[in-house]
Amino acid sequence: MHILLTYDVNTTTPEGRRRLRSVAKLCEGYGQRVQKSVFEILSDEPGLLKLLDRIMRTIDEEADSIRVYRLPPDGFTTVRTLGQARLTPHNDALIL
Amino acid sequence: MHILLTYDVNTTTPEGRRRLRSVAKLCEGYGQRVQKSVFEILSDEPGLLKLLDRIMRTIDEEADSIRVYRLPPDGFTTVRTLGQARLTPHNDALIL
Repeated sequence: MHILLTYDVNTTTPEGRRRLRSVAKLCEGYGQRVQKSVFEILSDEPGLLKLLDRIMRTIDEEADSIRVYRLPPDGFTTVRTLGQARLTPHNDALIL
Repeated sequence: MHILLTYDVNTTTPEGRRRLRSVAKLCEGYGQRVQKSVFEILSDEPGLLKLLDRIMRTIDEEADSIRVYRLPPDGFTTVRTLGQARLTPHNDALIL
């Protein structure tokens, strides 16, 4: 599956800034960071559920927001970019 | 078309913070803000090109990043959310 994961983590507290780093670190294990709080993730359903479970145990449900969009198979390569944004190569081997 | 527009605007300068507000304002005319720098946009191709043209004339190409993903037709309603994230209703009338 081609997934776009976007998040807003409330960073007004040191605890929030720690959560932000943790969420980013978790996502880095599953895909490519394409913007500060946007990841392109290649995963199967079990892998995605495992990631979401770990994120769920990391965030503050009252303060943070996670969105997980399913893209079409060409979603990463047909993205339109302006400014510094670039197409991001993915390592297909990530789909175990 | 169902579009997800995500952006990183460099806000280390007053000028950058002004660009951020401008980009958000432009996007608000085309869709729904679902996270700080993420918009769900319902648009036809001419409408999207007009928005991107206006964004292009707003951003600093050396400092800012815009990504425009095409979602499947059920992309807004099948988004998975954690924490404060919610499904966002769209006014279908936006597609002229």
